Amino acid sequence: MSEIKFIENGSVTSVPGFKASGITCGLKKSGNPDMALVFAEKPANFAGVFTSCVFAAAPVRVCQKKVRSSAAAQAFIINSGNANACTGTSGLANAEKMCALTAAGLNIAPESVLVASTGRIGVQMPMDIIEKGIKLAVSGLAADGGNQAAQAIMTTDTVPKAAAVSVEINGKTVTIGAICKGVGMIDPHMTVAPHATMICCITTDVKCDNALLEKLLADNADNSFNRITVDGDMSTNDSCVIFANGDSGVTLEENSAAADIFKAALLALMQNLARKQVMDGEGATKFVAVEVDGAPDTESAKRLAEAVANSLLCKTAWFGCDPNWGRIVAALGYAGVKFDPDKVDVFYDDKIVVSKGGDAGTPEKDLAQILQNREFTVKVHLNQGKGEYWVWTSDVSYEYVKINAEYHT
Amino acid sequence: MSEIKFIENGSVTSVPGFKASGITCGLKKSGNPDMALVFAEKPANFAGVFTSCVFAAAPVRVCQKKVRSSAAAQAFIINSGNANACTGTSGLANAEKMCALTAAGLNIAPESVLVASTGRIGVQMPMDIIEKGIKLAVSGLAADGGNQAAQAIMTTDTVPKAAAVSVEINGKTVTIGAICKGVGMIDPHMTVAPHATMICCITTDVKCDNALLEKLLADNADNSFNRITVDGDMSTNDSCVIFANGDSGVTLEENSAAADIFKAALLALMQNLARKQVMDGEGATKFVAVEVDGAPDTESAKRLAEAVANSLLCKTAWFGCDPNWGRIVAALGYAGVKFDPDKVDVFYDDKIVVSKGGDAGTPEKDLAQILQNREFTVKVHLNQGKGEYWVWTSDVSYEYVKINAEYHT
Repeated sequence: MSEIKFIENGSVTSVPGFKASGITCGLKKSGNPDMALVFAEKPANFAGVFTSCVFAAAPVRVCQKKVRSSAAAQAFIINSGNANACTGTSGLANAEKMCALTAAGLNIAPESVLVASTGRIGVQMPMDIIEKGIKLAVSGLAADGGNQAAQAIMTTDTVPKAAAVSVEINGKTVTIGAICKGVGMIDPHMTVAPHATMICCITTDVKCDNALLEKLLADNADNSFNRITVDGDMSTNDSCVIFANGDSGVTLEENSAAADIFKAALLALMQNLARKQVMDGEGATKFVAVEVDGAPDTESAKRLAEAVANSLLCKTAWFGCDPNWGRIVAALGYAGVKFDPDKVDVFYDDKIVVSKGGDAGTPEKDLAQILQNREFTVKVHLNQGKGEYWVWTSDVSYEYVKINAEYHT
Repeated sequence: MSEIKFIENGSVTSVPGFKASGITCGLKKSGNPDMALVFAEKPANFAGVFTSCVFAAAPVRVCQKKVRSSAAAQAFIINSGNANACTGTSGLANAEKMCALTAAGLNIAPESVLVASTGRIGVQMPMDIIEKGIKLAVSGLAADGGNQAAQAIMTTDTVPKAAAVSVEINGKTVTIGAICKGVGMIDPHMTVAPHATMICCITTDVKCDNALLEKLLADNADNSFNRITVDGDMSTNDSCVIFANGDSGVTLEENSAAADIFKAALLALMQNLARKQVMDGEGATKFVAVEVDGAPDTESAKRLAEAVANSLLCKTAWFGCDPNWGRIVAALGYAGVKFDPDKVDVFYDDKIVVSKGGDAGTPEKDLAQILQNREFTVKVHLNQGKGEYWVWTSDVSYEYVKINAEYHT
């Protein structure tokens, strides 16, 4: 397989045939950019995965319908500053209207426009502001607008998030670009049926039917976005959408080598963005990979890894650079998995901290040194099976409390 | 049913026939009291409920065996400052030795001594310190020692917790007393098989066989301690033990009016202590009751209430006095329960905030006023069934992060 190459300053517009814009329409009190548009110059195959929250927002519901009913899509209109969630039938009508206004501006069919929103829950969308914004977004479309689009979808994000990769498939270059936002209410479990507010738009130039595109996206989401947690709170608005315009001349068929290469490149891109989300997690000072292996089965490994990654006591200990393994084993112990505690080993990076369920004797200063790093790994070897799973998480800091006690979403 | 009366400054020693002590043996660096002993002057019926953590601590394992094998018990030795958890076979031997040393000091059988520990996980118990401490605890036993015992089992608790009630049964006065500690790693799910570090010792003067005593204790734990959560982290060491010496002359039989009265009085006592634990939850500035009704079934109501009570975003919003109902519905939405979101109403105390899944229009200042209280209720009416459940929880503050980033357990 050829090398997967990351493109400097890459984004959705690194892919030929896609334009984007990021503008300020006035949804945010701060006056920061709050609307983005991604546009495929010709109809593209598409797929999406969305939150599994019962209170799925109006734009999520609109997109879920379109991925089932539309053959192709051409545009993705995204606003920050208002989530259009818990807004009833008016909210649904407004999400549809955002599609219709975008379609009118672009002179395409409303069926081919997708929509996503992030921000405050429970407030009706101010459609006069939206209408003016969409006009601006349409007129602002540019072949290098991806990074501006990434700016415009930020909420508590401190940095915009975008990336692009290229890979050779059958002698031709395929490009995949993306923009996304995090960074609170992040514990996505996005499924093809209906989990964070994270929003991600991916563009590519392979040719691939919607069904296969969905399968590749969903499989990769399970190994990227669905493995991150900042606060353990899943959002009403999580959406990850991919557009494929076919311009590279590479066609993907199921179970082909070409599809395998593309899937690996897409995963590299999605993991890159998932990592950026956790790195920029609200108030985060640590990036922690929790890796569990030797569990009875994969589901058990998942429950164990998620229990540690979401433990408030572990997350505050990490913030304090405290290698408090007692909190790790306590979390493993309440995860709802039956296992023999006396077989369990735990490591911080390459230093053993728990051996056979008890203190491994590694000097605390050696451990504390690891905990002072921006990034480290908690490895849990259960030594009683073949199940394995990993999760990426962040710590909980004073800044986290400040952001969430003072930020009125 | 006669009135259940709370006794001023009540504790385990409010019950005739019980003595207690609280002393300093030197397990805590702070020099604060760290060992308590509760003693029944004659063999008593007993029962216990304990953590369901896979890494149940050595003293928990020792007690679990005794509640199955011993007919009667007479003493409960409790230390703070060291959890004796994840300490392997040496830890088990040390927990047994704590019983044996206490038995020797009291001139009773080791089988009739129970043990509990709370504090740092993964450190062997310093038995020389323990041995001297037990001698002090035995010699310090006093008929009014309950409140000193309550002092000695504190960890991050800011106040000692004790209470006692009396009630008339068949014309005779029955007394029930207790001491307990919270206040971190609190999300108990104690069962008669094997879940917080919370430790509670209850004494009473009814006569009641161990099987019925266990049933009454377990049922009431499910409606008190097992309904509280501070941080969502269940402990390795949770233990709640009851001793009944029979001195009141009241005998409890299954399905009797007497048992019903006793159970109600015991529940009042246990709820009083559970409330004190949440009020003193680490860094807590709010006491929040989350009440769900109209759910498809009780299990669904429980999952919904627990999702809200453990949501980091809800807990930080409450700290900020922010009536952010979007976070409440998001948590309801990811709880893993299927329901119709458009039927859901949510109240803060008596003010409606969500009506039929959307904003109820109550002015934010009216809501903010409620949120500024030390104590308030989040009421969720699903309006689609008869399942109901409630949970008591606290907020997450800067002080919570400070305690848990800087306190090396």
